[in-house]
Amino acid sequence: MKRILTMIAVAALSVLAANGQELANFARQQGTPVVSPEVKDGKVTFRLNANYATRVQLSGNWMANPWTGSEDMQKGPNGIWELTIDAPEPEIYTYNFIVDGVAVNDPLNNQVQRDGNRYLNMLFIPGERSENYYESQKQHGTLTYRWYDSPSLGISRRMAVYTPYGYENNPKQKYPVLYLLHGGGGDEEAWPSMGRAVQILDNLIEKGLAKPMIVVMPNGNANQRAAQTLKLPNDGKAQGVQNAYVNSLVKEIVPFIDKEYRTIAKADGRAIAGLSMGGGHTTAATLNYPGVFSYICPLSCGIRETEELDNQLLGIKKAGYKLYWIGVGKEDTGAYNGSKVLDEHLTKLGMPHTLYVSEDAHVWKNWRLYLNTFARLLFK
Amino acid sequence: MKRILTMIAVAALSVLAANGQELANFARQQGTPVVSPEVKDGKVTFRLNANYATRVQLSGNWMANPWTGSEDMQKGPNGIWELTIDAPEPEIYTYNFIVDGVAVNDPLNNQVQRDGNRYLNMLFIPGERSENYYESQKQHGTLTYRWYDSPSLGISRRMAVYTPYGYENNPKQKYPVLYLLHGGGGDEEAWPSMGRAVQILDNLIEKGLAKPMIVVMPNGNANQRAAQTLKLPNDGKAQGVQNAYVNSLVKEIVPFIDKEYRTIAKADGRAIAGLSMGGGHTTAATLNYPGVFSYICPLSCGIRETEELDNQLLGIKKAGYKLYWIGVGKEDTGAYNGSKVLDEHLTKLGMPHTLYVSEDAHVWKNWRLYLNTFARLLFK
Repeated sequence: MKRILTMIAVAALSVLAANGQELANFARQQGTPVVSPEVKDGKVTFRLNANYATRVQLSGNWMANPWTGSEDMQKGPNGIWELTIDAPEPEIYTYNFIVDGVAVNDPLNNQVQRDGNRYLNMLFIPGERSENYYESQKQHGTLTYRWYDSPSLGISRRMAVYTPYGYENNPKQKYPVLYLLHGGGGDEEAWPSMGRAVQILDNLIEKGLAKPMIVVMPNGNANQRAAQTLKLPNDGKAQGVQNAYVNSLVKEIVPFIDKEYRTIAKADGRAIAGLSMGGGHTTAATLNYPGVFSYICPLSCGIRETEELDNQLLGIKKAGYKLYWIGVGKEDTGAYNGSKVLDEHLTKLGMPHTLYVSEDAHVWKNWRLYLNTFARLLFK
Repeated sequence: MKRILTMIAVAALSVLAANGQELANFARQQGTPVVSPEVKDGKVTFRLNANYATRVQLSGNWMANPWTGSEDMQKGPNGIWELTIDAPEPEIYTYNFIVDGVAVNDPLNNQVQRDGNRYLNMLFIPGERSENYYESQKQHGTLTYRWYDSPSLGISRRMAVYTPYGYENNPKQKYPVLYLLHGGGGDEEAWPSMGRAVQILDNLIEKGLAKPMIVVMPNGNANQRAAQTLKLPNDGKAQGVQNAYVNSLVKEIVPFIDKEYRTIAKADGRAIAGLSMGGGHTTAATLNYPGVFSYICPLSCGIRETEELDNQLLGIKKAGYKLYWIGVGKEDTGAYNGSKVLDEHLTKLGMPHTLYVSEDAHVWKNWRLYLNTFARLLFK
């Protein structure tokens, strides 16, 4: 990590030295070179150059209350505020500073993630649990942002598609496909960025722990054409149409992928997984369209009991499936209870499945963990 | 624009309402819904909720000094600081706030660009000059992030590749290729993000103003594997090797693209353009390897006079070329003078060319303008 931070510092200096880009206020704000965050000997030190601030706090999602927790930083010489904490367990965390009540990103950390409309710095703590969240060493798949037409939603839309290392050079090989769905507030960039889906799949495949697979990450907001466009209205026809996105996923996206990529175009070559809202899409897609996906992984969502639920689940049983894997955090009360409901129904109906209960609640920390876990079980 | 801002506000509220994502400090920081930036009737209003700040400034690159300019904002009721300015001419600008001396991004604006290690908010002013910088209405090309092996540099590396709308569905059509190079401090994400290359090409092609073309945007830092990786060292073999990246571009990247994509694999099917450092790569690649690229567009760089310069330029003349287009801002003193040197040599040698002189200096505003201008001239 020290080498990485040195690299970042060197990169920052080279930006200062280069006249190849617009420099705006960077130099003026920074003063002397400062490193933040510095991960070393089980500690993490955060630093911010803020000589005129009266109070600076650190807020991070590893704190006891990940939404509102904060700790005061101490002003040192040269106006640099500093706080050293014990490193949390290996993972990727998010944090920001609060300067006189205003949320501020760490200008010395170029690792930033967008979660919906919010930008937060990322803190990488290396270790066994997080080792697959870094770029793999050798074999890198391809990430493609591609538009497709959705006649049922009345708009063209963007999706992210991961193809594994070797896809382009093995023109006769066919690949299974994982449809990987984001949650509320997310979009087609959520799994590639916050979810580290590319890094996780690259690592698992390079290590021989997962089958080479295509991963399709569509935009689950039925009226939205793509993340962060301007001037392209959210004017799809989905408004008020029950399961509009789920229908489009099964009837439009799956055939599009089977046409455009070298897929194993049958249920045993298809997995579906999604978190929260995307978990709802996962259960709806499989309950309403049994026999399309053989691997079913609803994450952090559970299920609502309806009169048709058992009959629909029996439809899945009858069509046949290879894996039913439910992931949920034990502190994610609503989703946990809903997952128990799903677990009980599957048990009652004699349907083999896994209920994987992790620590924590409704957080990306869990969704990365789940992907890193269930991806090893797919297509085997 | 009002609708867009309403959409952003609605999206922000829906993030607040959703429990599908980690909320961190967003709700706590925001208080009542506030819109920023608001573009309306020729004015732009910026707002920041910062009740405990003693001074809040706005800094934007449309100001007289784009690097250090700032204007004080006024504190209003509810602790919301505000400043209304005359809208600058249609373009994409960057800005941030300065809260008690600390640079802060606008938390209400989800349009953010990364320039090297810095994140700045984007301000879109619509108008004729900037209309191609928004997503096109109908036909969207595909953007792919792809790794390739560079034996000469000793590492595998990532590039961005744009394929135009229709590429996937016209399997017999071959396309010309524009190699589009970034400047110092940039990487393979610079042209797709700050340069709006995807939007510009989509719009020009959709309107019939440019030929459908592939655009290859490699990483021009010869020792860097890819933008923003962690744990992947910058350990290429380029250190100290003259033109290491340029050699790799011509000898490795061009053959890779010709092998992997349906290209018009000859000089008349190849253009090369680059800004600043990438302009140096453009002149070096064409001087050292005449006859590979028929369309040559060095931007904001000029040339250094050497003893071999005329002989090398005559090599290009002898090999034949279709376009030599030099773009530079009249306030970009060093690059302007260097461009005049190139202009004079080309004139002296009887080599047809264009010297396109714009306003302003060494800024993305110019590089978007140049791409939006010279792309119409390619492959015709």
